[in-house]
This record gives sequence, C-alpha cells and structure tokens, in this order.
Amino acid sequence: MKAAQPVLIDGDWRAADVVDTFRAEDPARAVAIGAHYPVSGARDLERALAAASSAAEALVQVPAWRIAAFLDAYADAIDANAAELVDLAHAETALPVSPRLADNELPRTSNQLRQAAAAARSYAWTLPTIDTKTGLRSHFAPLGKPAVVFGPNNFPLAFNAVAGSDFASAIAARNPVVAKAHPLHPATSQRLAELAHEAVLATELPAASVQMLYHVPEALGPALCRDRRVGAVGFTGSRGGGLALKRAADEAGVAFYGEMSSINPVFLLPGALGERGAALALEFFTSCTLGSGQFCTNPGLVVVPRGEAGDAFIAAAAAHFDGAAPGVLFSRGVLKNVQSGIARWREAGATRLGGSEGADGAGYRFAPVLFGVDGAGFLRAPAALQSEAFGPASLVVRCDGIGEMLAVAHALEANLTGTLYVAADGSDDEAASRLANVLRPRVGRLIENHMPTGVAVSPAMQHGGPYPSASHAGFTSVGMPAAIRRFAALHGYDRVPDARLPPELRDRNPGGIARLVDGVWTTADVL
Amino acid sequence: MKAAQPVLIDGDWRAADVVDTFRAEDPARAVAIGAHYPVSGARDLERALAAASSAAEALVQVPAWRIAAFLDAYADAIDANAAELVDLAHAETALPVSPRLADNELPRTSNQLRQAAAAARSYAWTLPTIDTKTGLRSHFAPLGKPAVVFGPNNFPLAFNAVAGSDFASAIAARNPVVAKAHPLHPATSQRLAELAHEAVLATELPAASVQMLYHVPEALGPALCRDRRVGAVGFTGSRGGGLALKRAADEAGVAFYGEMSSINPVFLLPGALGERGAALALEFFTSCTLGSGQFCTNPGLVVVPRGEAGDAFIAAAAAHFDGAAPGVLFSRGVLKNVQSGIARWREAGATRLGGSEGADGAGYRFAPVLFGVDGAGFLRAPAALQSEAFGPASLVVRCDGIGEMLAVAHALEANLTGTLYVAADGSDDEAASRLANVLRPRVGRLIENHMPTGVAVSPAMQHGGPYPSASHAGFTSVGMPAAIRRFAALHGYDRVPDARLPPELRDRNPGGIARLVDGVWTTADVL
Repeated sequence: MKAAQPVLIDGDWRAADVVDTFRAEDPARAVAIGAHYPVSGARDLERALAAASSAAEALVQVPAWRIAAFLDAYADAIDANAAELVDLAHAETALPVSPRLADNELPRTSNQLRQAAAAARSYAWTLPTIDTKTGLRSHFAPLGKPAVVFGPNNFPLAFNAVAGSDFASAIAARNPVVAKAHPLHPATSQRLAELAHEAVLATELPAASVQMLYHVPEALGPALCRDRRVGAVGFTGSRGGGLALKRAADEAGVAFYGEMSSINPVFLLPGALGERGAALALEFFTSCTLGSGQFCTNPGLVVVPRGEAGDAFIAAAAAHFDGAAPGVLFSRGVLKNVQSGIARWREAGATRLGGSEGADGAGYRFAPVLFGVDGAGFLRAPAALQSEAFGPASLVVRCDGIGEMLAVAHALEANLTGTLYVAADGSDDEAASRLANVLRPRVGRLIENHMPTGVAVSPAMQHGGPYPSASHAGFTSVGMPAAIRRFAALHGYDRVPDARLPPELRDRNPGGIARLVDGVWTTADVL
Repeated sequence: MKAAQPVLIDGDWRAADVVDTFRAEDPARAVAIGAHYPVSGARDLERALAAASSAAEALVQVPAWRIAAFLDAYADAIDANAAELVDLAHAETALPVSPRLADNELPRTSNQLRQAAAAARSYAWTLPTIDTKTGLRSHFAPLGKPAVVFGPNNFPLAFNAVAGSDFASAIAARNPVVAKAHPLHPATSQRLAELAHEAVLATELPAASVQMLYHVPEALGPALCRDRRVGAVGFTGSRGGGLALKRAADEAGVAFYGEMSSINPVFLLPGALGERGAALALEFFTSCTLGSGQFCTNPGLVVVPRGEAGDAFIAAAAAHFDGAAPGVLFSRGVLKNVQSGIARWREAGATRLGGSEGADGAGYRFAPVLFGVDGAGFLRAPAALQSEAFGPASLVVRCDGIGEMLAVAHALEANLTGTLYVAADGSDDEAASRLANVLRPRVGRLIENHMPTGVAVSPAMQHGGPYPSASHAGFTSVGMPAAIRRFAALHGYDRVPDARLPPELRDRNPGGIARLVDGVWTTADVL
C-alpha cells in the first residue's frame, strides 16, 4: 500500500484502496507536479457504491429546495475560491488563465450549478402531467439509485466529474453522484470535491451524496457501469472509451449517456465566401486553435467550393496556420493521438496546406495544421478522412460546386454540430436549404454563420447528437432542465390520494409550478 | 419457394422471400386456420429497410397535418371495419368478442391513433424550446430513420405492430414503420396492414411509410435491430425475447424501447382487508383471470398480512379460483410457459391454495390457479417466486405484519406497476406511506385501491418501469404525447433564420403551439 491522497467516500476523506499511484503533469514542461494520488481498487468502488445506494434512498425524500441550496452553496464556494481553482487547473492543463479559465470556464461552472439549482427549485425538469379524468398523474423523478459520472480531460472545471454538467444534472434530480475524476487534473478535482463536500455538510444533504475517486484501473470502469446498483452513467470523452463503458452499462440495463466524438463539419457557401472570405478564414482559424483545438465542438472539417473565393479562403486560412505558434496539448497521449489522426488523413490522400504539425519545444507542444483533400478524394475514403484528430488540426475538402458539397454531406457520420455559412444577400439560400436537409439528421445542433465552439448553457441547447457522436439522439448533456432528465425515471401515480403524491403533483400548487393539466400548461391549482 | 400470402413492402403487397410458411391456430380447438403466411428471409428485410430509409427522408418533409390526416383516416377505417377485425382477432386469439375485443380493445386502438393524430397536429410531443437571448431553439424531431416495431401476442389490435401504440407513436413523429407482426394473429395483422396501406395511399404519405412482415426466422429479429439504418425499435413481449433484441440494438447504438415483463405486486393492508376483504377477493380474482390472465399488468403477486382478515381474503379468493372454468390461452407455447412458471413456484416451496391448473378440454385450456407461500418462504427464494407465470395464475404471500410486508417489497425486482389497497378510515396510512417509499423506485406506476389491469391511454400514463420490466425507466409505451418522444431526436438550432426553422420554432406561432420561451410556457409569438 503506497502513500497517496485520500479519496472522498461515504462522507469522509478516507485512505484509499491503493492499487497504484500517479501524479499530474505540467503539460508545458512534461514534468510531474503535485501530490501522489491513488488509483482505487475494487474495495473503494464497493464502499462508494454501497454508500451511494443508501444516500440515494435518503435523497429521494429530501425536499427540492434543499438540493437547490446545496447547488447554490457549491456555486458560491467555487466563485469564492476562483483564483485557487483557476491556478490548479492551469497548472494541470496548461489552459490559459485568462480568458479561458478565469473568465469563461469557471464562471460557466458556477453558473451551470445555479441553473441546475433553479431547475430543481422550479421543478421544470419534472414535466408534471395531470389527467383529471382518469386520476392519472406522472412526472420525472429521482432514479432512486446513484449516478456515476466520468469527467473528460478537456474541461477541468465545467465538465469536471464532481462539478460539471453531468454532476449538476444528476444531483438536481436528487441522485447521489460517484464521480470518477479525470486523472490529468487530480488536484483541481480534489479541491472541487472538497468544496462540494463542505457544501453537502453545510446544507445537510446525506453525507454520501457526493463521492469521488481519482482514477481506477482500466477494467474497473466497465465494472462500475455494469453494477446494477447504478441508476445511470454520464460520460464525456473519447469514442473508444465511451463505447467500452456503454457496452458494460448496456449489459446490465444501466442507462448510459455518453458525449463522445465529433468533427463538426462546416460548410462555406459560395455567396458567404464572396462576401467575407477573409474574415471567415480568421474566424475558422481562431475557432480551430482555441484551447489548442481540444474542444468536442472543434471545426475539424471544412467544406468549400472550388473557385476564386474558395481558393482565396484556403490561402488565407493556410497563412494563419503557417504563422501559428505551437500550442500545448494536455498530455503525451493527446499529442500522440492527434499525430496518429493526421497520419490517417495523410494515408487516405490528404496533404498539408498550412501549419507545421511540429512538436518542437518543451512539453506536449504541437503546431496547428491545416490539411486538404478534394471532394472526390474525400468520397473515396470518407471513414478515414472523417476520423477525429483531437487537437488544433482541420481538414479542408475542396468541392466541385454544391453537388459535390451535398455528396460530402451525405457521406458524413454522426456529429454534435453541423454549420452552414450563408450569404446575407440570399444568394446561398437554396443551396443552404438543401444542405441543411442532408445535415439535419446527422447532427445534434445545426448552426448558421458562426463557429461551433462555444456551447451555451441554455434551455434550448442541444449538446448531443446521433449515435455515435452521443449515445442516444434524444438527450443533451448541456442545458437545464433538459440535461437533468437523463438522470430521471418517469413515475406514474394512479388514483393515489394527494397526501401520498409528490409536491408537484398535488392538487394545490402554491409554488406556481408549470404543469400540463388536461393538455394545457398552467400554474393554477387543480380544482 | 412455397405459396404464401404477400407481404407489404415498398408500397405494395408483394410476393415474399419465403423461407418457410405458417398458419394461425384456433386456440380453442388447437387446429390450424386461415391462409398460409410467409416467414420472410433476409431479402425481404433488406427490401423493407431500403424502402423505409428512403421513406424516412421523405417523411421528415411532410407537414404534421398530413401525418395527422393519415392517423385519423386509419382510425376511421378501423372503426368502419370493426366487426371484421374483431372476428379475425377472436378466431386467432380466442379472446372474447364482447366486451374485450369489440367494446374495449378495438375502440381503444382507433382512439389511440386519434390521440397520436392530435399530438402530431398540436406539436405537443416536440416540446419546442426557445431562448431568445442566445438565439438557440430546440425541439424533438423525427429520427430521419425508420422505426421497427415488434408486436406482442396478447393485444392483437391495440398493441399490434401495425396498429398499436408503438406504431402510432413512431408514425406521429414522422418515422416510417417496419412492422414485425406477431405470428399468432397473421390474418388480423394482414387486415390491419391493408387498412393502413389504403390510408397511406389516400392521404398521399410516402408509400413505404408502413410496411409489414408476418414472421422472420429467429436470427433475423436481432439482425433487424442491429441494422444501423434503423432509428429505433419498439418491442412488447417476453423478457427473454426482448433482451435478445435489446442486445442486438445496443451493439449498433440503435435506441431500443422494450416493455417486457412484470408480476405487478399488490399489497393489501390490514385496514382495507377489514373494511372490504370479500369484495377485494372478487376484484383480485376478476383481474387475475381477465383475458385468461394474459396481461402484462396481471396481478401475479398478492401480499397480505396474516390474521383473521387476511385469512378470510385468501379463503374467499381460493374459492373463486376453485369455481373457475378453464380459460383458453393463446398457444401451446403460452400454456407450457405458465405451467413451467408454476413448476418454478412449486419447487421454490409454494403450494396450491385454489383452482386446478388443469389443462383439460379442447385447445389450449388452462384452469386459473392460486398459489401461496409464507413471507419467510418468499424471502428464501425471491427470484424463483417472482418469476412471471404469464396466464391466470397468482401467488399469495402471507406475511407477519407490516414488517414482513416491507421486507417482501424490498426483495422485489422491477415491475410495471405496484398496488396498495388502503383503508378509507386512515388506519393504513402510515404503513401505506412506508410501503409506497419502498415500492416507488421499483415500479413505473404506483396504484391505490384498484387492480393494475386496465392501462388508460392518457398523457399521464406510465406504462413502463425500471429495467428489466422495461428497457429504460424514463419512457412509457402508452400515452400521448410522451410515448411519441421515444421515436424522436432532440434537434438544436443555433441562430438559424426563421425561414429555415421548422414551423413550431419560428417566431410567429399562428397555430398557438405551446412552447417554452425563455423559461415560460406560452402560445404567443416571439417578438
């Protein structure tokens, strides 16, 4: 048993069942930093699941306002400790302090927890439905079982397993969370978990409502998903990792919500290129290299028509890539992965148009790169050429007019987003409509005239898409209250008297909850 | 190639790819009746999926009112041909013409199609959500891919693969349906498919919007679910069959909605037994033997406290079973299945309290039977004693007071329903609340003071439950508009101009669609 930081299990920071230890790295220098953290063995999982199962039974009885109070208290604690959290996340990820971590991601994290609190308080996620003729009432309700959340490498705060959207969603639906943090940022996750645990104690939730493990051996991730005590799993990460966990969850009938992979195709229509090609080249370059390209909504495929405007766009974009300094990636694994993705493109016939794909300098540095292929070449090897190269790399497809652009769209697999750039003067409208029809079933979010990076926490967000960009086309992992409904069961009540109904289904509605009563949305009492 | 009835593929009744043929049976006489029907080979599946994929693309563009017109026209045709449909279903299932088929199931079938039409017309299933600050809009939308529907043996009309709730739901969301009828009632399914096809032609939907196969070899069911061209699968039937199809769908990331198995526990509290034990005995017996017990919501487990009132209830119930004439089951398979279910109970220590479990007389006859076990015995073998014996058979568990009733509830697996009978005078209230808390996460629909048979088509119905009573705890297979949302994708629009938005997300809202605009449900325009 090696010395390692404690894990948060069953309401306390406890000595872990240490099967191995690891440390974070400073990606800018490729040197280990910080404390030694445990890789947890099966005994930790068992203790966490047993405690979470008890907490799940207790949480079902906790009133919604107390869940909201916890989420708000945790949000306040994150804001109060912003500078420390940003420093920790910066050290472990090399993401810029400002604007990325301090001005965008941290406020987004606390804001998301507050939106979850508001949705808990308003019962908006429960869709209370009342049929007075039959005496039937239904709503979305807690699972009565814990949720397991796997955090990704690329948002140490806003998608952290113990602070992000899956966490906030699962808790808002009154389910305890067993968080499996991402091992690339353990100190950030530790500090967040400390704040979450303090908020649990301060608001008197069941102590095991929030638990966290830093890391588990590869076989134990699926073991966690396959455990029938688990109500649902939230996952953000790679396609390979996600599908392995999904298989395990599917075997046991555990609901699995994975947000996995996407190349986010962008179609630039001729009129738009004519109007503002140079501006679009900069907009594209900026989006593709933001956060060293380590976004699930990174524009990884850009489809342009041949011709003067298209050629000028490509030349301008290539020049931006040529002039770009190397960015720091999260880890040696991320670096190797983008390099092997690019190798796949090259084998499939793509050539470098701009940038260096150089990996010079200290740490995990990689220079942004733009590749290109013509439409016919793309259509000969669509699978290889739409494989994700996670990082600041993108592939331009040069097409012979709208016909070939449509053919490329038809060859696309599932994506989180699809984007059209359309002229203001109406000259692209017909082509845009045809492309939108082809893209629509292939993407979760259809965008016009701006880049896909930037995922607002909004009730109307769809951050999800068809399989396998996500695990189920009917859900989103971002946006309250919809994201909460992933962690819910549909409960029916059949002529159950008022006293034994949950508050949002009772006749009297003093809180003015929006309810679908006999087919009409109303905040009134049932008479 | 044998002679057989044609299948409905790609808009026409065509000669099937016949790998075998079969006939229906009159279950009351165990003799084959009617025409020879085909078991379809892989070529039929391929033709149907190819045609359905094209129809899916076309259906996305069809306005909602035309979908509604189809559903209404089909409902009218079912009503206009009610006598013929009822006769066909009666001949193939031996279910009583009246009241079951003519007065309940047939009107329920057409009513359900009309409710789906109304939900299509009102866009209620799409949950349109608009965030004016960010320019984001979202709604539930067609899958853009066909749905495959597997019908069960026990509702030849209301859950028929080509007429029932899954069919109506999938079509209302503008997805074509490939129906896999249940082979026990081919002539009923054929006549329904003829009426559906005529309605497709009359309302000018894409001709392959409705297709039907009568039967497929065992390996082709999973092959159909594993096909990536399929958007979603709806299944009603046995746990074994459902889980085999679910595994296949899961492999391919195809959404699977199965309504599988349930024993529907009923808890009779002491006060209720004291108030009306004799009436409850008759109510229970009637529910358990309705339709020869072949309901997914059949009360298969009854939990009663020992003591005078409980003993009197059991004696009265046993007397009803003793006096019951044998009923006709659907098939030799159903008969064998209920017998083997009862054998499992007996091996696990249950004994016969009433009825004969006799299988005398012509056809697949079986006499209703009541078994019993004490609470300690149930808790020694909870898995065997809560295995489903599909048919007119139920198991009474005699408990030592509320403590043991709670222990039995704790030992229950997932069910579609759970029922409490509670005294009117308030004397059971505390026990009822404790039992309800234990049952709540284990069942889809919590019922008070009436039997679980009878599943109203209501917006507040939950006909589903935790896994493995159903495949996903968040969905219902009955009740509009919720059941429609199973066959939908969540689509986001990000600053897409009005002209390229679907009607329910545009600024102007001339149809008065209920929409969630900036957090408030409204039928107003967006200004």
